[in-house]
Amino acid sequence: MIYLITNMKKNTLLLLAICFNCTLFAQNYLDAKESDPTKMGWMKGFPTSDKTLVLASDGSFFKFPALRYSVCHMRQFLPTTEVSAAQKNRYKFKVKLDNNIDQLKFIPTNSNQKMTWSESLYKNYTDGILILHKGKIVYEKYFGALKPEGVHAAMSVSKTFTGTLGAMLVAEGLLDENKTADFYVPELKNSAFGDATIRQILDMTTSLKYSEDYSDPKAEVWIFSAAGNPLPKPKNYSGPKNYFEYLQTVQKDKGNHGEIFAYKTVNTDVMGWIISRVTGKSLTQLLSEKIWKPLGTHIDGYYQVDASGIAFAGGGFSANIRDMGMFGEMIRKNGYFNKKQILPKSLIEDIMNGGSQEAFRKSVYSSLNNWSYRNMWWITHNENGAFAARGVHGQTIYINPAAEMVIVRFASHPEAKNSKIDPTSLPAYQAVADYLINK
Amino acid sequence: MIYLITNMKKNTLLLLAICFNCTLFAQNYLDAKESDPTKMGWMKGFPTSDKTLVLASDGSFFKFPALRYSVCHMRQFLPTTEVSAAQKNRYKFKVKLDNNIDQLKFIPTNSNQKMTWSESLYKNYTDGILILHKGKIVYEKYFGALKPEGVHAAMSVSKTFTGTLGAMLVAEGLLDENKTADFYVPELKNSAFGDATIRQILDMTTSLKYSEDYSDPKAEVWIFSAAGNPLPKPKNYSGPKNYFEYLQTVQKDKGNHGEIFAYKTVNTDVMGWIISRVTGKSLTQLLSEKIWKPLGTHIDGYYQVDASGIAFAGGGFSANIRDMGMFGEMIRKNGYFNKKQILPKSLIEDIMNGGSQEAFRKSVYSSLNNWSYRNMWWITHNENGAFAARGVHGQTIYINPAAEMVIVRFASHPEAKNSKIDPTSLPAYQAVADYLINK
Repeated sequence: MIYLITNMKKNTLLLLAICFNCTLFAQNYLDAKESDPTKMGWMKGFPTSDKTLVLASDGSFFKFPALRYSVCHMRQFLPTTEVSAAQKNRYKFKVKLDNNIDQLKFIPTNSNQKMTWSESLYKNYTDGILILHKGKIVYEKYFGALKPEGVHAAMSVSKTFTGTLGAMLVAEGLLDENKTADFYVPELKNSAFGDATIRQILDMTTSLKYSEDYSDPKAEVWIFSAAGNPLPKPKNYSGPKNYFEYLQTVQKDKGNHGEIFAYKTVNTDVMGWIISRVTGKSLTQLLSEKIWKPLGTHIDGYYQVDASGIAFAGGGFSANIRDMGMFGEMIRKNGYFNKKQILPKSLIEDIMNGGSQEAFRKSVYSSLNNWSYRNMWWITHNENGAFAARGVHGQTIYINPAAEMVIVRFASHPEAKNSKIDPTSLPAYQAVADYLINK
Repeated sequence: MIYLITNMKKNTLLLLAICFNCTLFAQNYLDAKESDPTKMGWMKGFPTSDKTLVLASDGSFFKFPALRYSVCHMRQFLPTTEVSAAQKNRYKFKVKLDNNIDQLKFIPTNSNQKMTWSESLYKNYTDGILILHKGKIVYEKYFGALKPEGVHAAMSVSKTFTGTLGAMLVAEGLLDENKTADFYVPELKNSAFGDATIRQILDMTTSLKYSEDYSDPKAEVWIFSAAGNPLPKPKNYSGPKNYFEYLQTVQKDKGNHGEIFAYKTVNTDVMGWIISRVTGKSLTQLLSEKIWKPLGTHIDGYYQVDASGIAFAGGGFSANIRDMGMFGEMIRKNGYFNKKQILPKSLIEDIMNGGSQEAFRKSVYSSLNNWSYRNMWWITHNENGAFAARGVHGQTIYINPAAEMVIVRFASHPEAKNSKIDPTSLPAYQAVADYLINK
């Protein structure tokens, strides 16, 4: 997820990047309790003091530890559009809390020392955690700035919603996965997406000359960020004015589409464009009508938008944790939830079958052994058939079919990269799954 | 309601003003059907065309006719914070529509020709209208960009919420109406508010050197606007950085406080500050907890906020029309609604008794014969005891106790001033009241 701020004082661009390859952070952070945003008092007081002021205009709102406040208050900093929750047939979870979970032990993959589930939550700067077992809430906790009725930035978990909607349109026949993007959006003809198929975009096997390396000032991500920035453009700005204008300029890299999994946010934004063009609806409206309302969600979600009102499909969603749980449970139940078939069963099967493990093996994510990527979901291909939506700083919807378990976690880890967070997360999830399977 | 945009191209301030004394508009406008925002296609398409693009950065979002789109989508242009609706005990109105209302006739005060109720809705660029009679919905229509589940900018109807909360704190004893503002907010000591009482602020009888004349480039409203602008401040900006910083600089005018009704938005923002300081809660949080949730509202409302996250108490609220109806009906029923006493009965009596008619007569609003202003409500003192919340461009909550009637109207009239809108509104409301009384 990316956000750019125009720093007018210096008349330059101050770029704020929340990224996947980011190595800008120092190694010593306040721990989860020290950096508790409530304790730190961000934006507290009337008015808040200069020390606790978190600003969009200087980029401070997205720097750790203030980030821990901002992830729960994105709309306070940015223009947004709502993903309306249900007004009728609102779903109510059954709750049967299991206090044993706190004491479950696991060994982090980067350690020899056992850790309890409860300890892992602090280790990972968890803001909210929900565990569903057989559809019932067995565990639910909130930390920091997140309230049960609040929302939290989903970061790249957003991608999974775009991918799922795209795959839904494929299942419904509105999109042909073998057609190229320019068939649906002719403006993409001269871009790298012109000869990329819907399937390649959904599985991110496109070959794009597009770097998300934030340490490189010439990386394309900066142009993307500038285009999507809803603030007024700088004086001499002549670049693309919104996400869609930028996407038309993305060029192809050396390789062919379809060969290597290359996780790049712009694939999702192109998919968002295609979805809107084909349905005549904004991503926010479609998500609300097709998924959020049928689920019976309670809290309006929202997306940050660019100056043209275009939702940031690749990372702009904020949502409530229980509502996310409804989505996860619906996926686990093959698309059926709240007394209706919300998504076709074939679509869920397609996700669970996964994408090309060969293409994934060739990617920079090859350390995630045997995983694949399908419809913007991460498929572990482990013995439990687990698969997940994943976002930087520790966001996830993690589904373990064998354990009949769904975990939703919102977090604000100081490190963006999930490779820093997975060692104390993935084995923790597995420990809960093992416990629930044997329960 | 005021909003300021930094126009970086010219490195100057482009000011966008929605004002009470505004005479900047030309006299010939597209009529309500011609200017229907859906027909005009604002922001329609993926992406929308240059002709239908409505931008915050160039101020176009608040100019008629694009204004007709923006009033229903304020969050898409501005940072906001939510006023959370109820999650339980959500109120459901009984609906018993009365089609006779459309044909009711009245004579506009600026005309000799009869007009039907139905015609008046177009004349006044109505976006949404709700009539409650004895608590039941008897009339409900939506036009333009407003949807039944949507929200609309309430403009200065927002003031009434701030005033009602302030008066509630007086009734609860948390505020002493005879104490001066600096007793609660010492930072106001050297401002005009330093020796103004809570009562004078609530009734806007303060004497402030504060002009809302937008045709005067030196008017104080521009400084207020610049302070509250959530966008990055211009390069050489050295003024106040948020609403509260500005309020401390407001100076006293020649007269004494308490003598003349002088309708100035900053009174409301000072009251918002006092409310937050005394309760330790933001205006949005307090409104949600004390009123919005107890009412059983369905749709989250929201306020636009400044760079410090301070809600624009004087004009920044957007809300749903049925939710506004719940508020109006609660006031009509002496504070009792949805099976609970939400506001003290004494508070409603205080509003209905009104403020000083003498102070009102000395104001620029003297053409509103015998009216007064109390707790940021407009009291007609007519034979039905009608009183109202009022905002520019035609927003209102109009309560007629004798007719057991509440009207909520959202509109996007090309003229800001209610004096342009009242001639076809106030007699229309009275015609419906007369009909309901005799029904």
